[in-house]
Amino acid sequence: MRRWRKRHRQNRGGGATSQLPSLAAAERVEKRENVCGASHARGCLLPSNSSLLVLSCHLFHGWCGPKGSSIRQLRANLHTSPSVRFLNHGMGIPSIAIMLHELIKLLYHARCSDITLIRIGTSGGIGLEPGSVVITRQAVDGCFKQEFEQIVLGKRVVRNTHLDDWLVQELVRCSADLGEFPTVVGNTMCTLDFYEGQGRLDGALCSYAEKDKQEYLRAAYEAGIRNIEMESSVFAAMCNACGLRAAVVCVTLLNRLEGDQISSPHEVLVEYQQRPQRLVGHFIKKCLAAS
Amino acid sequence: MRRWRKRHRQNRGGGATSQLPSLAAAERVEKRENVCGASHARGCLLPSNSSLLVLSCHLFHGWCGPKGSSIRQLRANLHTSPSVRFLNHGMGIPSIAIMLHELIKLLYHARCSDITLIRIGTSGGIGLEPGSVVITRQAVDGCFKQEFEQIVLGKRVVRNTHLDDWLVQELVRCSADLGEFPTVVGNTMCTLDFYEGQGRLDGALCSYAEKDKQEYLRAAYEAGIRNIEMESSVFAAMCNACGLRAAVVCVTLLNRLEGDQISSPHEVLVEYQQRPQRLVGHFIKKCLAAS
Repeated sequence: MRRWRKRHRQNRGGGATSQLPSLAAAERVEKRENVCGASHARGCLLPSNSSLLVLSCHLFHGWCGPKGSSIRQLRANLHTSPSVRFLNHGMGIPSIAIMLHELIKLLYHARCSDITLIRIGTSGGIGLEPGSVVITRQAVDGCFKQEFEQIVLGKRVVRNTHLDDWLVQELVRCSADLGEFPTVVGNTMCTLDFYEGQGRLDGALCSYAEKDKQEYLRAAYEAGIRNIEMESSVFAAMCNACGLRAAVVCVTLLNRLEGDQISSPHEVLVEYQQRPQRLVGHFIKKCLAAS
Repeated sequence: MRRWRKRHRQNRGGGATSQLPSLAAAERVEKRENVCGASHARGCLLPSNSSLLVLSCHLFHGWCGPKGSSIRQLRANLHTSPSVRFLNHGMGIPSIAIMLHELIKLLYHARCSDITLIRIGTSGGIGLEPGSVVITRQAVDGCFKQEFEQIVLGKRVVRNTHLDDWLVQELVRCSADLGEFPTVVGNTMCTLDFYEGQGRLDGALCSYAEKDKQEYLRAAYEAGIRNIEMESSVFAAMCNACGLRAAVVCVTLLNRLEGDQISSPHEVLVEYQQRPQRLVGHFIKKCLAAS
């Protein structure tokens, strides 16, 4: 949250244009925590030295502490360690957006500063060997536009989906340090639907042929898109709007130019899924060593 | 699936315009089931006499059988009884869409017929007493349009979100039989976001005032909208496109014209959440008694 305080000062007293939550909102968050049976979550989640939050659609392999360190029922699962927090969220833009709204309100009211959020996950690759890791430069929509559009009070609101350049470069350096798997920087397409929205031929509904799909995916590659997933655009847009430093690191489970179905064995997929964790883990160690 | 076979005949050999899944898709579903550790799910889910599927974002209170009747890890939790299936899904359009694609493929390949899908859940009401049940006539988007728009291969595709009129009337009759809670028929607004997308003032981002929110919600009421949730539009659109009979029954937890926060005690909310289940339960009993 480098720009958090600055933005706070800019917005203070802004009335209808304020980007920050009200005290009533904080009370609401506390109330919801109580309803969800996690009444102590706030103290646990947000000591004043919080610095890094890692978010994933999946559970974390090997990163979760003993059973007691997992706080469930806060819409997401939360795992804590001294200065890093790990949260998992549901699939798709609406799920991660709800979690982000509530997380950002908590961070703000706990007066956290210098916050970095990193989303890690799996994705479909375009023109990449399965198992490649993509560090996202910019999240784009299904029309390759570098923006996130949503409807607010019946009107179209468009937000910037650029991710933090410094963080991208740091993560590239970490991958080079590790030298364990191929890593590229590219744009990530974020869709609302896993089947038709990503040009798959094996959904319940399909109104196009293999040729149309190939044309679309090749055009995506030409537009700098290297992978497809379902959360990055709203994640980038909300972090941008709140002045939070953010990154997206996803492994590709298949090359979509070669098919829609994952053919790798289960143990290979498990190892692929751990790659973003290993990369971000290395980054965390470097940050902690430097602090 | 009254219109399933007819639509099947119409689409057979339609190539790129076919609305039905291929055999490869079925093999893919079977493969995913195995990966997810539910290799026997297909046989268990889809005996040839399947007739009714009930879907909810929440777990089912009091409807779940003994522990062994719940099959987990199929992206959703599945509870079975002799001729009715209960599935729960994640929050938002992407989550329910993934589940519907995979469920519809299973139904098709298991040659099920005469299928009814009912989504039950909670929602925010507009101009209704909390605890009222809304049976959806039509799902609308955040601009009150009676359609579901999605991007397919970079192009805008719009689908009809009208729900089954006969089913609406049957459910109204069931509510009158019960006489336990207020029930209305109305349009349901389906949004991608819980906070800004529904005109809430207590999210992490808010660029409007109470007056703007009130204007929007009152306009929604004028447009026949009686509640807001996050799954109905894609549910209605996909069921329509596949010729499946479908209904949406949601209880309202608050009146959004009076605030954004739920003030009812926990035990009252639990009772509210059971109302759609009781209504649909009565409908199921009537169907089973008549069969």
